[in-house]
Amino acid sequence: MAGTRAVDTLIDLMARLPGLGPRSARRAVLAMIRSRGLLLDPLAHALADVAENVRECVQCGNIATQDLCPICTDTRRDVTMLAVVQEVSDLWAMERTGAFKGRYFVLGGLLSALDGVTPERLRIPRLVQHSADGISEVILALSATMDGQTTAHYIADQLEGQGIIVTTLAQGVPVGGELDFLDDGTISAALRARKAI
Amino acid sequence: MAGTRAVDTLIDLMARLPGLGPRSARRAVLAMIRSRGLLLDPLAHALADVAENVRECVQCGNIATQDLCPICTDTRRDVTMLAVVQEVSDLWAMERTGAFKGRYFVLGGLLSALDGVTPERLRIPRLVQHSADGISEVILALSATMDGQTTAHYIADQLEGQGIIVTTLAQGVPVGGELDFLDDGTISAALRARKAI
Repeated sequence: MAGTRAVDTLIDLMARLPGLGPRSARRAVLAMIRSRGLLLDPLAHALADVAENVRECVQCGNIATQDLCPICTDTRRDVTMLAVVQEVSDLWAMERTGAFKGRYFVLGGLLSALDGVTPERLRIPRLVQHSADGISEVILALSATMDGQTTAHYIADQLEGQGIIVTTLAQGVPVGGELDFLDDGTISAALRARKAI
Repeated sequence: MAGTRAVDTLIDLMARLPGLGPRSARRAVLAMIRSRGLLLDPLAHALADVAENVRECVQCGNIATQDLCPICTDTRRDVTMLAVVQEVSDLWAMERTGAFKGRYFVLGGLLSALDGVTPERLRIPRLVQHSADGISEVILALSATMDGQTTAHYIADQLEGQGIIVTTLAQGVPVGGELDFLDDGTISAALRARKAI
């Protein structure tokens, strides 16, 4: 393609990233090569840094540079609250809101009979064991999809009888959402969960 | 965002690539970290390789691992034909067709009074000088846009009187193109350039 093996290899690898295809990977790599000082060299450095130093937090599954991530070592956080999320990106989404001050547990996926994702692969036994350890509320912050709800119910079952409050995120009209553009399921859920104002 | 400076830096840099924004950069970086062996480590290696070894061909502006690119050193190519292209990606697009056997000259942009892109910045004086050197035809393979055509006319003017044939790519109906979906300009151009069959 480019006649240079190093460039071809980089394009092939970039094209495997989500949201990029062969064409956009080519454009991205060419942009890097054009802006050596602004993109190529800093990217090479940043990627080497991440490859060398970043690992999984042994406690929650978040991204970390030590064995424990900054959230798990932050003593100001409420250790009695645990939010269960699907992916690290969901943890980041929760953190951006600033509304949750507890700790997390990243499943790394959702239960799926079709894809052969078992409770063991999602470290659910580890979660149950971890929850016995001074946690009073587990918030299942999972997607409002079929797999998300199946996983939430499975975890709730596993945690039963431990004296832990198990909650899920509220369903309803998104902030700024126009009724006209919402699906029927969301409107029905919002109606069922209506509140006095 | 992620609580890890190395990851934040990588996301910031990835978000500057064309076709990626903050959200897709985040997804891409998380995918890398999830697939260490398949993505993160090979990408870090490939990027370091490109950053260290890839440079610009001093003759044509193509990407190269030596001073001259594989096309400029290929003795089987026709040294009397020179295709002038805007970017390296255009050179690659031409190469994929296999239809051109001459050499290239990459401008690295198009003349634009608005963006302050001058003939000097596009190495046009260098192109004119290079063209005096045994080249019989210069093909201006530039975009059929306003800037592309301005640049083509400027280069054609500069090459006048050197006894060089200056041509441009034909304009017309793209192969597989349906008349109904083509813009008026293309249909008019195809009509003006009609040929006996």
